[in-house]
Amino acid sequence: MTAAIVQIKADPRTAKEIATDLFDELARATGDGVGITRECYAEGEDRAIDIYRTCAEAFGLRTSADAAANLLVTLPGDDGAAPGIIVGSHADSVPQGGNYDGAAGVIAGLLCLIRLHREGIEPPAPVRCLIMRGEESAFYGRANIGSRALFGLLEAKDLAAKSRGVGRSLRDAMASVGADVDRIGRGEPLFDAGSALAYLELHIEQGPVMIARDLPVSIVTGIRGNIRHRKVVCRGEAGHSGTIPRWLRKDAVFAFADLVMRLDEHWRVLLERGLDLVVTTGIVATEPAEHAISRIPGEVEFSFEVRSQSHDSLEAFYELFRSECRAVGAERRVKFELDDRVYTEPARMDGAVIQKLVAAGERTGFKSELLPSGAGHDAAVFANAGIPSGMIFVRNANGSHNPDEAMDIDDFMKGVDLLFAAVSAPA
Amino acid sequence: MTAAIVQIKADPRTAKEIATDLFDELARATGDGVGITRECYAEGEDRAIDIYRTCAEAFGLRTSADAAANLLVTLPGDDGAAPGIIVGSHADSVPQGGNYDGAAGVIAGLLCLIRLHREGIEPPAPVRCLIMRGEESAFYGRANIGSRALFGLLEAKDLAAKSRGVGRSLRDAMASVGADVDRIGRGEPLFDAGSALAYLELHIEQGPVMIARDLPVSIVTGIRGNIRHRKVVCRGEAGHSGTIPRWLRKDAVFAFADLVMRLDEHWRVLLERGLDLVVTTGIVATEPAEHAISRIPGEVEFSFEVRSQSHDSLEAFYELFRSECRAVGAERRVKFELDDRVYTEPARMDGAVIQKLVAAGERTGFKSELLPSGAGHDAAVFANAGIPSGMIFVRNANGSHNPDEAMDIDDFMKGVDLLFAAVSAPA
Repeated sequence: MTAAIVQIKADPRTAKEIATDLFDELARATGDGVGITRECYAEGEDRAIDIYRTCAEAFGLRTSADAAANLLVTLPGDDGAAPGIIVGSHADSVPQGGNYDGAAGVIAGLLCLIRLHREGIEPPAPVRCLIMRGEESAFYGRANIGSRALFGLLEAKDLAAKSRGVGRSLRDAMASVGADVDRIGRGEPLFDAGSALAYLELHIEQGPVMIARDLPVSIVTGIRGNIRHRKVVCRGEAGHSGTIPRWLRKDAVFAFADLVMRLDEHWRVLLERGLDLVVTTGIVATEPAEHAISRIPGEVEFSFEVRSQSHDSLEAFYELFRSECRAVGAERRVKFELDDRVYTEPARMDGAVIQKLVAAGERTGFKSELLPSGAGHDAAVFANAGIPSGMIFVRNANGSHNPDEAMDIDDFMKGVDLLFAAVSAPA
Repeated sequence: MTAAIVQIKADPRTAKEIATDLFDELARATGDGVGITRECYAEGEDRAIDIYRTCAEAFGLRTSADAAANLLVTLPGDDGAAPGIIVGSHADSVPQGGNYDGAAGVIAGLLCLIRLHREGIEPPAPVRCLIMRGEESAFYGRANIGSRALFGLLEAKDLAAKSRGVGRSLRDAMASVGADVDRIGRGEPLFDAGSALAYLELHIEQGPVMIARDLPVSIVTGIRGNIRHRKVVCRGEAGHSGTIPRWLRKDAVFAFADLVMRLDEHWRVLLERGLDLVVTTGIVATEPAEHAISRIPGEVEFSFEVRSQSHDSLEAFYELFRSECRAVGAERRVKFELDDRVYTEPARMDGAVIQKLVAAGERTGFKSELLPSGAGHDAAVFANAGIPSGMIFVRNANGSHNPDEAMDIDDFMKGVDLLFAAVSAPA
């Protein structure tokens, strides 16, 4: 036994203390005065990756960068020949974000490897921690850059995008941290899908459901895709509000309200039938150049988004949307003009992986419920690349992508225990 | 018989030809390249009044300015001692407006006096034509300036208002055309209500109802008042559109749509019960600083307006509005914040005057239907000052307050015939 290993085995800190220290160190190193900023392929993300690398190496783990400059952490005895379980998450953050988005999953992965190594446990398959870059879309408009690069899924326009629209290009930024941008630019796969038995990711919940339902930990069923229209115009006919009676009106705002209430009713009914759906009209506006209190609005613009874990539910709801646009248009004598439809594929978490996580939850002594993920994650990229994937959510207050993220360290440790139980269980 | 009177009696033009010439002359004198501009208490309105004065005097009628600088046209034998019937309308226009708004009523009044004089008809009561200034609110933000001045109803802030917010004050503008701004400023009545048996005004319809119902002429039942909120804020809670399920949402836009559809249903039912109502939400907008396609809207601002000829219907609908705000607020967990309520009193046209107009319509050989006025008129000021008032609408295409106003001269002459039949009939 070398002196180094003696020292590691002698580190008196518990897993919870290591986690607390890492979260604190990250907050100090990447705080921006308001929240946390870890710009991808730039200083903030680099600092976070340095912290993870230093910690892993201090505990005797091996680290290496892949061709997309993600950091891979492995156990000393792992020569990479056997297919393994990838435990991953991301090192970057949105500007002025919170400390836990991404970091929770990375630290959970590190803690699993540290425990396997410290306790000399031989897992049934190699466990590898993949610390990815560039998961957030905030800087380059494209999400999951680090994972997409691994599967040859970045497009030329993605690499040409500039940081927040004005800085250096993604290509230059990736090159600056050592990514092989030529291979990435050719869409060459950098990751051997056959080397991964499964992909597991722990992440804070970014919505309020677990707080509302008092769940410290849950298991994710799937990651919602969506269908969007950035801009729908409802066109009626403007006119003097006093002089045009109801039967002669072509009121764009009343028509919009009618459409929204019809969609709300379909949504309510479909939820009762067990479908996974959320529907949002985040942007609405009459035309400022011509609207007035006493003018019947001739035009209103709005955005439309439906999200679901199910491709079929997305398409079914979208058909309802189109058909209600036609019905309201005919009834209220307006026209709905739709811009290009944007489709983002949903991702299903693997059934066997979900079962394994549920069983691990039972072994660790608490009931973990199933929940969909509304936000996107690198796990969706792995799942859609055919790798059986699963996710663990940890309760978090105040939403995400803001400095007020609040994850309880005890909830986190429950999630880590669940993750450890899953990766150390016999296949 | 003087030479002048011989000449007048010999003017070979028919009433329709005189009207056509006057409309043409007005359009030439006050065209602005796009439409018609007759700024009140300024050059455009002055030009129109000059044309009316010249015409009236050419036909042997008497003209005089009142203390508010409105032009009064009377028959030569009228010494002003006996109470009379006032036939009035306005000389001004909105910027880039149409040729018929106001002018139709003035010319109709002049034609009645010319006919009485040419044909030597002795009406049962003196008929006087009142050509008012400043009916439009476009320049000083206050409507019915000329008529309100007559009843001492202009406030200090009205007189201090500047033309389109930047030009000279209304006080200076009124003084420049000879109005007695000291008396007006003191709120002194300049018009003896006892001198008016009735006030009658012919006006183009400013909405599309008469076109839709194929009515050349109609009789006005009342002038709608309104209750307005310039700004209502619906406040919910913003959040990630993917991560917050329906049951945890506080979606301001869905709540707004719900409110509008509830109001629409009340409106529909109340119309079926015979109430006079129009309801409008002319302005709607989510907050541009924070809205996004994938963000549940935490806030939406909108305007509210209900108009009716009936004070009771206004108040009843307003109560429904308030109560639905509370109901939607409770159901969808949002809050509606209302700014100051603005109330504008409706005006009823006098029942006996309406009957007289209906009877006159029957005598002139066509059926004139009853219609409310959605837009405001000087007739509302006279009616609310206790003078029995009535209005005749003439069919007009393309709305009003725009250069595309389109009144058929034959429709107009039907309106003039009706007006003449009413003022020349025995009391």
